[in-house]
Amino acid sequence: MKSDEFRRLGHALVDWIATYRDELATRPVMSRVRPGEIRARLPEAPPEHGDGAGDLVALLEREVLPGITHWNHPSFFAYFPSNTSYASILGDLACAGLGAQGMSWQTSPAATEIEEVMMDWLRQMVGLSPAWTGVIQDTASTATLGALICARERASDLAQTTTGLQGDGAPLVVYASAQAHSSIEKATALAGFGKAHLRQIVTDGRYAMRVDALRGAIDEDLAAGRVPCAIVATAGTTNTTAFDPIAEIVDAAREHGIWVHVDAAMAGTAMILPECRALWDGVEGADSLVFNPHKWMGAGFDLSASYCRDPQHLIRVMGTNPAYLRTQEDGGVSNFRDWHIPLGRRFRALKLWFYLLDAGVEGIRARLRRDLANAQWLAEQVGAAPWWQVVAPVQLQTVCIRHAPAGLDEHALAIHNLGIARAINDSGAAYLTPSVVDGKQIIRVSIGAEHTERAHVAALWAALQGAAR
Amino acid sequence: MKSDEFRRLGHALVDWIATYRDELATRPVMSRVRPGEIRARLPEAPPEHGDGAGDLVALLEREVLPGITHWNHPSFFAYFPSNTSYASILGDLACAGLGAQGMSWQTSPAATEIEEVMMDWLRQMVGLSPAWTGVIQDTASTATLGALICARERASDLAQTTTGLQGDGAPLVVYASAQAHSSIEKATALAGFGKAHLRQIVTDGRYAMRVDALRGAIDEDLAAGRVPCAIVATAGTTNTTAFDPIAEIVDAAREHGIWVHVDAAMAGTAMILPECRALWDGVEGADSLVFNPHKWMGAGFDLSASYCRDPQHLIRVMGTNPAYLRTQEDGGVSNFRDWHIPLGRRFRALKLWFYLLDAGVEGIRARLRRDLANAQWLAEQVGAAPWWQVVAPVQLQTVCIRHAPAGLDEHALAIHNLGIARAINDSGAAYLTPSVVDGKQIIRVSIGAEHTERAHVAALWAALQGAAR
Repeated sequence: MKSDEFRRLGHALVDWIATYRDELATRPVMSRVRPGEIRARLPEAPPEHGDGAGDLVALLEREVLPGITHWNHPSFFAYFPSNTSYASILGDLACAGLGAQGMSWQTSPAATEIEEVMMDWLRQMVGLSPAWTGVIQDTASTATLGALICARERASDLAQTTTGLQGDGAPLVVYASAQAHSSIEKATALAGFGKAHLRQIVTDGRYAMRVDALRGAIDEDLAAGRVPCAIVATAGTTNTTAFDPIAEIVDAAREHGIWVHVDAAMAGTAMILPECRALWDGVEGADSLVFNPHKWMGAGFDLSASYCRDPQHLIRVMGTNPAYLRTQEDGGVSNFRDWHIPLGRRFRALKLWFYLLDAGVEGIRARLRRDLANAQWLAEQVGAAPWWQVVAPVQLQTVCIRHAPAGLDEHALAIHNLGIARAINDSGAAYLTPSVVDGKQIIRVSIGAEHTERAHVAALWAALQGAAR
Repeated sequence: MKSDEFRRLGHALVDWIATYRDELATRPVMSRVRPGEIRARLPEAPPEHGDGAGDLVALLEREVLPGITHWNHPSFFAYFPSNTSYASILGDLACAGLGAQGMSWQTSPAATEIEEVMMDWLRQMVGLSPAWTGVIQDTASTATLGALICARERASDLAQTTTGLQGDGAPLVVYASAQAHSSIEKATALAGFGKAHLRQIVTDGRYAMRVDALRGAIDEDLAAGRVPCAIVATAGTTNTTAFDPIAEIVDAAREHGIWVHVDAAMAGTAMILPECRALWDGVEGADSLVFNPHKWMGAGFDLSASYCRDPQHLIRVMGTNPAYLRTQEDGGVSNFRDWHIPLGRRFRALKLWFYLLDAGVEGIRARLRRDLANAQWLAEQVGAAPWWQVVAPVQLQTVCIRHAPAGLDEHALAIHNLGIARAINDSGAAYLTPSVVDGKQIIRVSIGAEHTERAHVAALWAALQGAAR
């Protein structure tokens, strides 16, 4: 492709994206294609001869859009908010256009240094002290795996440089609440601890980790000769946005030198609001934390902000230094390849930078407060309606509800509530995720798309009531 | 940002990217900023009030470009080719504009199904049998870590579901050549094997793994009661593009049920040329392989193609199934969140699709053959010039050379060749990477940027000769 064709297609694509997003509210939120439908429309073999990319916009409209579930739709209430702001789209475009590698400082100093500044801006935004240093990762799952490996290596005195977990050390144990995200169990497995060495600690009535049970589990492991290694504290569970009591967890951890990792993937964004920070009180005592500006905040996937208090330990665990990467660096630069699993790195800081310049911190705060108010409003409506229940405390923007008419047993209620969710999802008017809390089938309403206003939440509530009848 | 501003800024950015790339050859290849220079120009705190992103193009030109090393410059001969084709930039833009999540089939069916088709197109392009199934990952480092974890779990009968590597099983051992990429040692450490359980097998005169030495190491481990678990065969080492003898390695592995992972990160692209496929003869006997279309091929970082022969095993190792991700899927769909470490996923298949439609397979073959011919030409010039040496076989597009005038000892030669590389890099006329082969300081010329023609290679050769004088 020559540059004139790139200009032509690029302009057309920019316009198409703007039109797509302007008209987003008119589309059904959830894709309606059936398995295999998109695949069957594509040729079985790659084209032998190129045709200059042809009409990409027509291709997107015809072959792709039917298979897209619209995450930026104002009536998207499923999973989690995944706001890809316009400014972040431009940042991704600039990143691709430059095609620069940020694996080490020298491979493109701007990629490293702008990332350092953006991670520091974010740190200030969520009220963390300067003792934290951040790096961009793809997802919280990857960051959490890295954190558990760092914990493993601190507890084992860098055993990976010798016999790894295959020496004769006592088994290392990981702790998390029973409501923790599935990525914790996955990371425990992948890092080699084994799921038998993960303690899933019971939660209280608000779905937060019970620290007495945590302490009990630690004591039991110590008595059995095992080594408590890491505690993952969740700041905002996926299911109900429950907050583990971080300050108390940190106290328990300190007594035994246990690593504390804070998983604030979704809810970390809330800490941009000073009035929310009490929810993660004690966070300064943790060793690592992750939150995802690519969710509610609006920086565009993938941009997970991964912070630690001891980057030198991180580099000892994750670093390599082969001859072909030797540079003329002085000691003062960061080489982010040594901060995580992948080697190559995109210039993701650009999309965060553009977004912050565009929105400003105050603009972000205003949007977050709007979403919190909408969640409270919905919870009030649900709480006041006959047979409807709010089944978990509404701490932020997620509202877990169910319709429980008299005379239905738990099995019938599950079918009924799944039916409500399915009716709404199939209607195309909105999209939400059924889930299970305390063994009860519930409907989870996650509010926070960029263009979700009160009217959209009110329409959802009307639809829920209609579907329940 | 409103859509009209997005259109305006988007058009300006597309034009800026086109102009940047049209004029790329006039810029110094390597960034000349000093550590901290970019960082110092940015405000210490994020903006409290947004200003609508302002003039992003001016920002890129003024604050970013001085800190960019131009990976798509026609005189970029460093590290590896990282071709970000125009079509792939458009694919990245479409991906960001849609903002769709591909973590499971239901979260956007098109993201999953187009990825399945693209991975199958790629499979056909490199001549692999239909027994292979692919998924996109960020980098080969991540894919290799995943492969070693899969190997660990096959050898240990899914020990991660019980005591992990902390049980009483015999130690598992990993094998790779002494020329293997640093990511192998890193993956061995991160996966918990411990570096003491990595055998770095000696190489022959062509820097390929010696299978007799491999067999010896396996026998020694077996005799000591350890379990040979995985062999990483490199198809195209980073330093010299050496190819381990995969067929013989597979034979040795089969006798003991050892997992074989093929690291073809850079050189996998060469297999699009049928005349190159003898170089990885035996690959069908491997269990997993990775190559990076985001390197020489042109799909734009990050797009690493990760293939396996037993996706069900992969899913058993990497899968989770929390309630909130339950969908209405039938059994026929792929949920790629269960194929690797991260949960969330971008719609990266778009950039590969757009690129293949634009270039066609024949177009890619023609470009690769041009690069191979340029590498041979350079090797001939170097081989024929007094005091210059080609220090490793030129198998593909990487040429390892040094200038060795009479009377200099190894130490003086190292200083001399580092000086040549530095002089060229500092001149801005070209960029290449010094490296070390067999303890000798060499200069590594990696040819393969999209716009690198014979004239650029000839100019580099003239500059090398000039710098040597």
